[in-house]
Formats: sequence, C-alpha cells, structure tokens
Amino acid sequence: MLENSFSSMSKRMKSSIIRELLRDTGIVSLISFGGGAPDPETFDREVLAEISKDVILNEYKFALQYGPTEGDPILKNEYIKVLKERKGINGLKPENLLITTGSQQALDLIGRIMLDTDSYVIVGHPVYLGAISAFKSYGPKFIAVDIEDDGFNIDQMEKEIKKLDQNKELSKLRFVYAVPNFDNPSGVTLSLEKRKALVDLSRKYNFMIVEDDPYGELRYEGERLPDLYEIAEGHNVLLLNTLSKVMSPGLRIGLIVGDSKIVAKAALGKQGVDLCTPGLTQRIAARYLQKGTIFERIKESVKIYRSKKNKMLDAIEKYVKIDGARWTRPDGGLFIWLELPKNFDTMELFEKAKKIGVAYIPGTAFYVDDRKSSAMRLSFCLPSEDEIEEGIKRIGHLLEIDR
Amino acid sequence: MLENSFSSMSKRMKSSIIRELLRDTGIVSLISFGGGAPDPETFDREVLAEISKDVILNEYKFALQYGPTEGDPILKNEYIKVLKERKGINGLKPENLLITTGSQQALDLIGRIMLDTDSYVIVGHPVYLGAISAFKSYGPKFIAVDIEDDGFNIDQMEKEIKKLDQNKELSKLRFVYAVPNFDNPSGVTLSLEKRKALVDLSRKYNFMIVEDDPYGELRYEGERLPDLYEIAEGHNVLLLNTLSKVMSPGLRIGLIVGDSKIVAKAALGKQGVDLCTPGLTQRIAARYLQKGTIFERIKESVKIYRSKKNKMLDAIEKYVKIDGARWTRPDGGLFIWLELPKNFDTMELFEKAKKIGVAYIPGTAFYVDDRKSSAMRLSFCLPSEDEIEEGIKRIGHLLEIDR
Repeated sequence: MLENSFSSMSKRMKSSIIRELLRDTGIVSLISFGGGAPDPETFDREVLAEISKDVILNEYKFALQYGPTEGDPILKNEYIKVLKERKGINGLKPENLLITTGSQQALDLIGRIMLDTDSYVIVGHPVYLGAISAFKSYGPKFIAVDIEDDGFNIDQMEKEIKKLDQNKELSKLRFVYAVPNFDNPSGVTLSLEKRKALVDLSRKYNFMIVEDDPYGELRYEGERLPDLYEIAEGHNVLLLNTLSKVMSPGLRIGLIVGDSKIVAKAALGKQGVDLCTPGLTQRIAARYLQKGTIFERIKESVKIYRSKKNKMLDAIEKYVKIDGARWTRPDGGLFIWLELPKNFDTMELFEKAKKIGVAYIPGTAFYVDDRKSSAMRLSFCLPSEDEIEEGIKRIGHLLEIDR
Repeated sequence: MLENSFSSMSKRMKSSIIRELLRDTGIVSLISFGGGAPDPETFDREVLAEISKDVILNEYKFALQYGPTEGDPILKNEYIKVLKERKGINGLKPENLLITTGSQQALDLIGRIMLDTDSYVIVGHPVYLGAISAFKSYGPKFIAVDIEDDGFNIDQMEKEIKKLDQNKELSKLRFVYAVPNFDNPSGVTLSLEKRKALVDLSRKYNFMIVEDDPYGELRYEGERLPDLYEIAEGHNVLLLNTLSKVMSPGLRIGLIVGDSKIVAKAALGKQGVDLCTPGLTQRIAARYLQKGTIFERIKESVKIYRSKKNKMLDAIEKYVKIDGARWTRPDGGLFIWLELPKNFDTMELFEKAKKIGVAYIPGTAFYVDDRKSSAMRLSFCLPSEDEIEEGIKRIGHLLEIDR
C-alpha cells in the first residue's frame, strides 16, 4: 500500500509527545517525572485479585462474555451511587451513563459524535494533550484561552465567543473542554466564581461543556468545589470520570455522564468502535465499588500523594534557584507546572536532562499551536520521595549550567 | 445541545440491527439463534480465574497500570508463536502486531487510517455487519460482490475493479474485506482457488485485503486452507485475529498483523482512541497462551460446536419443509445461512418468531443496501442441542403457517 493512500484523518493524527519522549529510555537510573501513571503501590491488589478470581468463577457468563455496549448494569448502578454520595448528583438513571474503555475513549467518542472539520473547540493553554489528540483527528479548529492561577481567563473566553458570534460562527462552537479540578498539566483549580461564570457563558451562548474530572478525588488541601455539572444541574454539561487514578488504570474504566440523548449517540459510536468494554474489568470494578472500601483506600493514597507533592515543592524551593522561575502549588492531582524565564527551552533541555537521569514533559506538548515553551510538567505520583528529591536536584543543576 | 449540532460522522452511524433486535427480549423461554456469542461453558474459567489472581498479585505493576499502546509485549510474543505454529507464518516481529480492544477495534482503526468519504471498499453480499458499521462511519462507498458456495464471485469482483479503473478511480479502492474461513453470516469458506485469485487481483490492481479470521480455529470438517496472508506472503494483506471465539470475548483481545508501517499508523490511531487495551486482560491472555493448553481446549469446543451444528442441520432437514429453501453446510464457525423462497420476508417474520419464542437475524441486516431478504442467519453456538431442535421446530411451524 502506498503512503498516500492513508486517510485524511490519519494525516491529522499526531503521536503523543509524552509517549515518544518516554519510549524505551532504557536508562535504569532514570527518575521520571513524565507520565501521569499512579503509584502502583496504591492499587488494592490483594482485594482486586480475590474479586477477579470470584468474578471469573461465579460470574463468567457475564465477565467472560460479550456485554452491552452501554456498560455493565451493575457497574452503572454503583457509579450512580458514588456520584450521588461524593458529588451530590441526584436523579441519574442508567441511560445517563456510558461506560467507556478509559477516559481516552470518552474523549474520542465525544469528538466522534460532536466534531466536524468546521467545528470550534475552546481549550485552555496549556491543555491536556490526550484530549487534543482525541479531538484533533476529527479536524476541528481550536481556540485557546489562557489558564490563570484560578483557571480559564473567562473574559478572554467571552471575547473569543463574541468574535465567533460576530462572524456568524457561534453555532459551530461545539464545546469548551475543561479540567476544573487540578488541571493537567498546570495543576490549577478553577475557582468557584469562574465555574459559575463558565456555566453562565454556556447558557448565554448555548454551547456544551465537556468537564473532565479524573483527579477530583485526589484533593490534598482545601475544600471540594462543586462540579460544573452540579452548578449547571446537568444542562449542557458532559461529565467525564474514570477509575484510573483511584482504582487502577489497567482496568480501563471511564465514564460519560450526561443527557440521555447524547449518551445514546455516544453509545451508538461505541458499538462501531469496540462493541463493549471488557466485561471482566467492568465487573471487577463493580464488585470493588460495592465493597465500599474505596474511599478509605483513597484516603491512604491521598496521604502518600500529598507527602510526595510537598516533597517536590520543597525540593523545587531548594534546588531551582533561577530568578523569575515560578511554579504552581496544586491543591490536588498529580502535576506541578514549573515555568522558567523565557530564555529557557525545555524541549531542548530534555535530552540533556535524560542524560543526567531525569525526565519531565516539555511544556510545548501542551499547546495546540506547538509553540516553544520554557515550562515543564512535573508529575510527583510515581517516583519515591527520595527520587523526587534527587530528580529535582538534577534538574536544578541542569538549569544552573544552562542559564 | 441541539440535535443538528451532532457531527456528520454521527449521522452516518447506524445501530446494529442485531443489538436492537435482541435487546431486552425479556422472554424467558426464548431460544436465540441470534448473536455470535460463544458457549460460556467452553470458557476455561477455573484456569483463567487462577491466572487472573496470580497476574494481579504478582504482575500488578503491568496488569493494573497503563501499558504500551502497541500491546503487552509478552502477549505479542505468544501470539507470534501461535501464528507460526498454527498458520505457518514465519518472520513476524512485534512491530508487525497491534493488540486491539477486540476485533471490532481493529476494524475501526483500519477504517480510521484508510478510509475517506471518496474511498471504495469491496465487500461480500451478504457481509458481516459489524465490519460495515465500523467502516461506514468513515463514509466510504461500498461495492458488494455476491458470495457463492465457495466464496466471492471473483469474476464479478474483477469486473467491478475494472470499472473503477476505467473511471480513473482505482486509486480510491482501499481494500477488499474478506472472512475466508466460515464467513459471517453465510458460513461459506473461500476455496483455495479463489483465495489465490483474490491475492492475484490484489497484486494486479494494487489494493489491500483486510482478512478477518475470527473463526479459523473452529473447523469441524475438512482440511485447513492457507490464509490469504500466507498466500500473499504478507504483501498487501492485513490479517485480523481475535481470542473472542476461542478463549473469551469478555477479555476483548483482538489483533492486527501486517506491514509495520501500517501497523504503526493504526497504533497512532489507537493512542487517541483508547490509549491502550486493558493490561489485565492482555496479561491474562498472555499467561493463558503460555500454558500451551489452549489448542487441547479448542478441540473440546470443536466437538461441542460440531455436534450442535449437525444437530441444527438435521433439524432444518426435518422441520423446514419449504420447497426451494436452501441452506449452507459450513465446515466451521458459528453460523448457518438459511435462504427461503423470495416470497418470504424474514424481517417481517421476526416479530412473529419472537412471539413463539425463537429468534434469528433477518438477512437484511447483512446487506449494505438494506435490501429485503428472504434469508436468515442461524447461530448454533449458544443454545443447547435440545433448544436447537425445539427452536428450529418452531421456525419450521412458523414457515408452514406463513407460506
């Protein structure tokens, strides 16, 4: 087959810079602040192992068989309970939920059912690149709005929306993509005021909000803020959730919550895409949620991650002695965003960093316009505290040499 | 969100008639010849339960974590061994393989990387509707070629290809979709002669073949025929495989084998689509294959299915007393295709059949032009032999009344 006989969609696909950068590093002593993978020691493996065995032995007619595209009914019921207890979302029915093969599939399905090549999507700058890669293959145009210490620059967002309106293109604005809790990569939390303002905008100009909340349960400081979905009472919001950061990413359990018509459309898309998410991993997740111990377990993870986060903040304070450097102090999640003065190019520095045994994600990965960046995303979830100290020390040295 | 703001792709999506017809039938005594789900008693559940427990306890850092998009390296190695031993395919490297979330994802990814709205795809008539639904969302045009007792009408296929050539559209012919072993829905096997002819056509006119082989190991009579992939020595062929029919569909393990460049492109698509197939189900499959007992196990399944198939053929002989009715006698797989005289409409009959407690898939589901059909697909894998006898008896009565 000839190269030029690939589809136009395939030409829009771009490899994740994270996956490429972190591929086969092969350096044994490498300390990686790169991926967003949780600490595997937080996985409740003894309990999951027993559940898995029981589920295969006793529920094999479901767990090992084809299942409904919409998801395991038992898992959906358990998720409805969790959303009620933890987020105060009432009145959800099974038809408001679609179980997906990880959050990534939720993002892809939303792109699939909502985006055309003349559509617009508003995102933050910086923005989670997995979402961009999912949406991008459907060819929309991105409008990027600055992320400030309390989230989106809402004024700038409204200005952009008004521009679309003036150009008679408002109906092509499909949605705003938002990670209100401990955003990836910035670690920033959208303030209550701005949450309300965003929901108001969505009502005023009648666009959807895709609210991605993988980290909400991983709060280390401060009080929980209401989800956009709650504030909007479900109107015009699709809420995405996942068990990847609080149970296990290897189970690949994601969730879309929203209007039943949109959910049905996404399920129709899923039929063609993978028929159903594995019955085995869904039923394991369902039985695990049913035990009711997950939130005690998450408390333990929160302790571990809080301590790692503080360790990293202390280490940055101690070792990053660059005038003008600034970094976020996230209330939760997995990431710290470190911005250096403009003369640094963190993409250029990346290879040097790898040579001295430390990896991060260069900021450029998180901009839809591929701009140069003097920032880096530092994930504190996977390395040990000693590795965090040592890794940040190495970065500090590198910056000293390079400035 | 307004209905008209769904994407153009979503407007091409069509619900699987199988899933809709078989949804919530709620009739306890219903005997279903509908789905293609394997008999759950063929699942090696005791062994899979132990493996699952071990994998979670001892390999949690892989099985419960994010994994490589390309698939579990251990599973890929095991698959390479299987393809060598069972199909005589030599020289495969890991980069020739992509693990997918079921075969359905393989079909979707192939559509994603190869199809545009001006592309052509050649399929059989009748054809597996899951493939059509995967390809259809990318908007290609389908050219349907009759399926005869020994597979594609190859002369008709060449005529259609020549037409494209005359219209200067040959370069838009992306691939022929083929299920050479025990085709779904017809049960027909592509003869050796026609396999060679198809590969010759693909060389002569330079198009790809997507060879889907979910049932190859389920042969009940006759000798194994070489795959198109073998005959073509891998040139211009993508071979699809799955563990769904021989291990468990609930694990959702599919496979694309082909040229490393195309496989890499499909992996790039998969990154955006679901990041990776669950580590847990992949590693369970890998460890199960490693035990080396699967082919002994399949022998047992083959005995069960052969007996069920013969039971169904006998029952049709006995109860379907309609002049002009004809049906396939498949050498393997899961389906018998029963064609009635043209005055029957099996879609119309379907509701009546359900009322008397038997379900099948109306033939119309398997035509890309949604034509009326007097055929039905009968799956013999899931019901017991007594149910097969009773169900075919009910169909026989219905036809007597209705003719």
